[in-house]
Amino acid sequence: MIENVRLIEVKEEILSDNIKLAGELRERLRRAKTMLLNLMSSPGSGKTSLILRTIEGLKGSLRIGVIEADIDSTVDAEKVASRGIPAVQLRTGGFCHLDATMVAQGVDALPVGELDLVIIENVGNLVCPAEFDTGAHKNAMILSVPEGDDKPLKYPLMFSICDLLVVNKIDYLSLSDFDTAVLRERVLALNPRIRILEVSCKTGAGIEGWIDWLNGEAAAFRV
Amino acid sequence: MIENVRLIEVKEEILSDNIKLAGELRERLRRAKTMLLNLMSSPGSGKTSLILRTIEGLKGSLRIGVIEADIDSTVDAEKVASRGIPAVQLRTGGFCHLDATMVAQGVDALPVGELDLVIIENVGNLVCPAEFDTGAHKNAMILSVPEGDDKPLKYPLMFSICDLLVVNKIDYLSLSDFDTAVLRERVLALNPRIRILEVSCKTGAGIEGWIDWLNGEAAAFRV
Repeated sequence: MIENVRLIEVKEEILSDNIKLAGELRERLRRAKTMLLNLMSSPGSGKTSLILRTIEGLKGSLRIGVIEADIDSTVDAEKVASRGIPAVQLRTGGFCHLDATMVAQGVDALPVGELDLVIIENVGNLVCPAEFDTGAHKNAMILSVPEGDDKPLKYPLMFSICDLLVVNKIDYLSLSDFDTAVLRERVLALNPRIRILEVSCKTGAGIEGWIDWLNGEAAAFRV
Repeated sequence: MIENVRLIEVKEEILSDNIKLAGELRERLRRAKTMLLNLMSSPGSGKTSLILRTIEGLKGSLRIGVIEADIDSTVDAEKVASRGIPAVQLRTGGFCHLDATMVAQGVDALPVGELDLVIIENVGNLVCPAEFDTGAHKNAMILSVPEGDDKPLKYPLMFSICDLLVVNKIDYLSLSDFDTAVLRERVLALNPRIRILEVSCKTGAGIEGWIDWLNGEAAAFRV
């Protein structure tokens, strides 16, 4: 067990400032009746694809906006905006995660009073985003089948802090030794309260479960 | 463009200390005639699988050791050690990357005088590991086909600092819209010197190109 104590201390100070700001943002959005959802995953697991499916699936039920994080490009925000949805791109300039200050700046750039749901597409990373409270009311993550069913063993914090796990790319199951039962067992051992859904953003399979979950959770904010 | 200036300053101070330590480690290993290779990728791209193929492929040519980074488990080091190869597990305790201090501690725990090549399996992450010089002589990365051919647009630093890119899981190409020619173009625009190899760790296709590269690079350290 090897530690670098100095860097840990720096991180802890930053983390405690962040928790306070995250709480303020969460409360402010609750008063505005807007649910904030933080969507996380590895690079290439399908965050943008799931958001595009979500825009389609929520048409007529929830008014949504999207905050896209990207280190150095604007391709995702352009894809979302092309569907007529308010979108903000946060260029993190090398940062590996979003914190509450960055998300608050994204929220300020959206017409929040007119939105029921704001989705944050976090930086593609299973490590750092799990450590920073963004101010979201709910955390969701995607794990894609080609990444393997051992990921809960290796990135336990991410699986522990999420309310929902979306297993994406189930259309790859036939080519893979990914074991869905083993995955469920590993995830539930870390986080017994987590909801697990299986989808394919490519074929559309299972997407209705995700849409139902979003509609149910967001409804609680509108009373 | 949103920035959090305070955290950037903290990072820069840490980075400059690290560069000095990395240079010292690199020089020390050069004198010992041991090549240090830093292997990076997203979670689940196939780092451990490639290392297991490497152990098999280098049998009889190079004596190798492995430094495994893992946030909270020892599964990878156990797999490697079961093949009779000296292996060290660095438990990073939540850290998102390895730095030169951590790698030096791993190197100290290996019988370096008896090894031609030490491979570092970095934390699965396309962001932070790219920013920290580990002291390695060469940097290699894996991108797996299911992650998509757009990753150079989103994680440009990682592609810029690597000497070699291994495109893994080419057995998934038939199910995917991954375009190898487009990927090559995007990668070479960032880094014209990078070598690109295509492999499948599952089937063994293309692995001989990787083994040849390792043998060639390591030979330069033994003169």
